[in-house]
Amino acid sequence: MIVYLDNSATTKVRKEVLDEIIEANENNYGNPSSLHRMGLRAEKEIENSRKSLAKLINAKPEEVYFTGSGTESNNIAIFGLSNLNSKDNIITTRIEHPSVYNVFRKLEKKCKVKFLDTDSSGRIDLMQLKENIDRNTKIVSIIHVNNEIGTIQDLESIGEIIKSQNVNTKFHVDGVQSYGKLKIDVNKLPIDTMAFSSHKVHGPKGVGGLYIRSGIKLNSLIYGGGQEKGIRSGTENTPGIIGFGKACELINSSFSEERNKLYQLKGQYIKRLTEEIPDTKINSPADSIAAPHIINVSFKNVPGEVLVHYLEDKGIFVSTGSACSSKARDNRIIEALNISKEYEGTIRISLGYFNNFEEIEYVVYNIKKSVEDIRFITNKRG
Amino acid sequence: MIVYLDNSATTKVRKEVLDEIIEANENNYGNPSSLHRMGLRAEKEIENSRKSLAKLINAKPEEVYFTGSGTESNNIAIFGLSNLNSKDNIITTRIEHPSVYNVFRKLEKKCKVKFLDTDSSGRIDLMQLKENIDRNTKIVSIIHVNNEIGTIQDLESIGEIIKSQNVNTKFHVDGVQSYGKLKIDVNKLPIDTMAFSSHKVHGPKGVGGLYIRSGIKLNSLIYGGGQEKGIRSGTENTPGIIGFGKACELINSSFSEERNKLYQLKGQYIKRLTEEIPDTKINSPADSIAAPHIINVSFKNVPGEVLVHYLEDKGIFVSTGSACSSKARDNRIIEALNISKEYEGTIRISLGYFNNFEEIEYVVYNIKKSVEDIRFITNKRG
Repeated sequence: MIVYLDNSATTKVRKEVLDEIIEANENNYGNPSSLHRMGLRAEKEIENSRKSLAKLINAKPEEVYFTGSGTESNNIAIFGLSNLNSKDNIITTRIEHPSVYNVFRKLEKKCKVKFLDTDSSGRIDLMQLKENIDRNTKIVSIIHVNNEIGTIQDLESIGEIIKSQNVNTKFHVDGVQSYGKLKIDVNKLPIDTMAFSSHKVHGPKGVGGLYIRSGIKLNSLIYGGGQEKGIRSGTENTPGIIGFGKACELINSSFSEERNKLYQLKGQYIKRLTEEIPDTKINSPADSIAAPHIINVSFKNVPGEVLVHYLEDKGIFVSTGSACSSKARDNRIIEALNISKEYEGTIRISLGYFNNFEEIEYVVYNIKKSVEDIRFITNKRG
Repeated sequence: MIVYLDNSATTKVRKEVLDEIIEANENNYGNPSSLHRMGLRAEKEIENSRKSLAKLINAKPEEVYFTGSGTESNNIAIFGLSNLNSKDNIITTRIEHPSVYNVFRKLEKKCKVKFLDTDSSGRIDLMQLKENIDRNTKIVSIIHVNNEIGTIQDLESIGEIIKSQNVNTKFHVDGVQSYGKLKIDVNKLPIDTMAFSSHKVHGPKGVGGLYIRSGIKLNSLIYGGGQEKGIRSGTENTPGIIGFGKACELINSSFSEERNKLYQLKGQYIKRLTEEIPDTKINSPADSIAAPHIINVSFKNVPGEVLVHYLEDKGIFVSTGSACSSKARDNRIIEALNISKEYEGTIRISLGYFNNFEEIEYVVYNIKKSVEDIRFITNKRG
């Protein structure tokens, strides 16, 4: 039995999406920049996809741009939003994905950078945010749903604080883990740009999206043929873009059902894990401020990496943290959450479209057994 | 009948490539950064692809990096090769693809930029190159095969001139139109970096490649999870990369036959077009200095754009110039070649794996008929 529970790292494409990718590769392979009708046809399909992406966040299609990845979208937005100099300052959090965090680390050479603290639920300190915004604050970048524990930030309050302190400060949101999972309405949120990614929502890898509010100007990072209105030059990945569009169309068609199913699955996992396994700690916050698809959990004195390998032997795939930092053993986010030493060995169970209720008992049984084995061996050694 | 002759704009993926893409999407969808075996499996396939790409240019696999496009590869190399300041100078040609040309235009704000002239065959002036390299020359970037007329630059002589004038000057090559078409041996060429693209060689769109000679250090353009040794952060497009690898493997297996077939097709097209249509001018140079797959041709007093639309009605797809600049009506390259006014309406016939000898008479017949019709209408109007 294979149970893939690493959907925050990446997802499997849905069948309907793969069918579109195949169709585009076979029959719609023209270059959208070509003048002939094979070019026009590719261009038309790209515009259809743009509509599907925009609909998911209530944006205008012309406010949505295709990029090569969520990482690229974050980079384009943050580097593109401002020509920074030494008297400027920019603000982000300690719990950002590396594609934001490392951009800010890079920008430390150019201007002042503030990394906001979070409380133990992973929420940023709004007072600290307010205190740090002044007339020289150029950008605030906030991760909407943290990729390791699933905490949702209150974008509405954050945006209000930013704009009331300095109306010129740009507000970028890393929406990679929230896009398609949470209801987002860009018309009700005072955000300027937002990044998202196809392969996190059962679309193909190699495609990202970037929302740029009408009127906001970005400097380009990549120069070339001027595709995507100069925001991302390079021949469009038409089959990938069409696949991303299809994935969004599918999400649009059953958004609430899917979200509810994920919350129910998550609740059931949390209930059964805490029932069955002593000294289990759920690091993800309550559902009212947490995404439906991420469960971060620790079992006292059980190293996450060891548990990951025990579980893969049973065909169960989970993660120790985010995939992007797992190899670098970057414990930055877990450290920011102030989790006690004995519970540091966290694993992340992340759910997706293909998961179902039938898998739960198999997974819980094997986690329980693995935790018992690991604790037994560790005690014997100790 | 459909005859696709716009293979320099983009190609259709080969069936074997599409099969690999489907297989990867269905069964190898893990994130290469994940610690579990689905991650390892994806990582292993990426390394296999890297070997196939490297083999095509006799590079070491660790010298090949995956990117999101050929455009991105050019940008990463040129922006990454040097921290430029106002006393530096950099050199390129007037006939570069926009993904190099526009990077150099951007860099004009930082340092001196020299755009080298070409002769009427599209070859750069080696004396002019030599004269312009001094101790402050940081980068020379040269397009290997020009995308509009197919001229091959003499990389060996160019590289020797560069390195003999200034051993520290970095030599970047835009190999997007030559990769997979010409024999390239990076061990015999004094180049530092080279860009290439999957979708020009019957691989999937959305993937590029970048050769970086061992020991050469590049600054990053995109920051994040540190994938591709930090050269291109962002979750790897595993299915795309596997597809690109397969396309290269297929090219490796029948390189000379394919190249010879393309040269023969090209020769036949040129022969039949010039035989059948009066006042035909072949703008591509002789085969000894021209790529096998690009035929740039003008028919006296026939606008290229009009001819493109006549031909698409017959299911024949050609281009007026490069797809990337066709919409911008950028005549930069045709101007650089000093083509007389009445022959300015060029079209580009670009060949690929799927083209065959049976198509030739159908295409020549329809070009002839279209040219006659357009000339008749133009004369009547005039």
